[in-house]
Amino acid sequence: MTILSQKTCSACEIGAPLVPNDKQIQLLSDLDGWDIDYSGTSKLNKEFKFINYEDSVKFVNLIVDLAASENHHPKIILEWGSVKLEWWSHKIKGLHMNDFICAAKSDELFNLFKK
Amino acid sequence: MTILSQKTCSACEIGAPLVPNDKQIQLLSDLDGWDIDYSGTSKLNKEFKFINYEDSVKFVNLIVDLAASENHHPKIILEWGSVKLEWWSHKIKGLHMNDFICAAKSDELFNLFKK
Repeated sequence: MTILSQKTCSACEIGAPLVPNDKQIQLLSDLDGWDIDYSGTSKLNKEFKFINYEDSVKFVNLIVDLAASENHHPKIILEWGSVKLEWWSHKIKGLHMNDFICAAKSDELFNLFKK
Repeated sequence: MTILSQKTCSACEIGAPLVPNDKQIQLLSDLDGWDIDYSGTSKLNKEFKFINYEDSVKFVNLIVDLAASENHHPKIILEWGSVKLEWWSHKIKGLHMNDFICAAKSDELFNLFKK
């Protein structure tokens, strides 16, 4: 996971390679608690739990900063006590290496909130 | 809509009154482009469109401030170019007057982004 989170997203254009299914499973095992939703476009998703609203909002803004710096923007669902993230690559309608990198980076940001 | 947006949420406890259906329709007509999703728990929802990520994030943070000040927290779904809001009252599993007030206040905040 450390290696994955230290990588940087590459430009993802139409025609860029999807991560093959067997490689997806391998990469998933390097992540902490992520799932792949295979209904429709495959998406990496995870719910992060918080004990207050303030921390969940801080986490959202860290993810927003990550999205801006990597030029890769997840779906972020914020409710009281919960932030759900979905990473996928719109241009290739599925999972690019970038999505696994950003999932790992998301976990590192969440670690900042662990007491 | 102006009057609605100037109101303040009241404390919503278990047993507080749901807005009756006919009143919901009337209040909905005072709002700008909101719908009620009746599947499961009734929820007021609307999608707000943005031409850049920065503005959508600013809007999310204004909604977060509103949520904190009213002690009423919507579901916020942020994607590039889009923020979807869902307002409903968890404690009474449906629509309280607070939800219509917060929807009107959300519209006023969105107006800040209109050029």
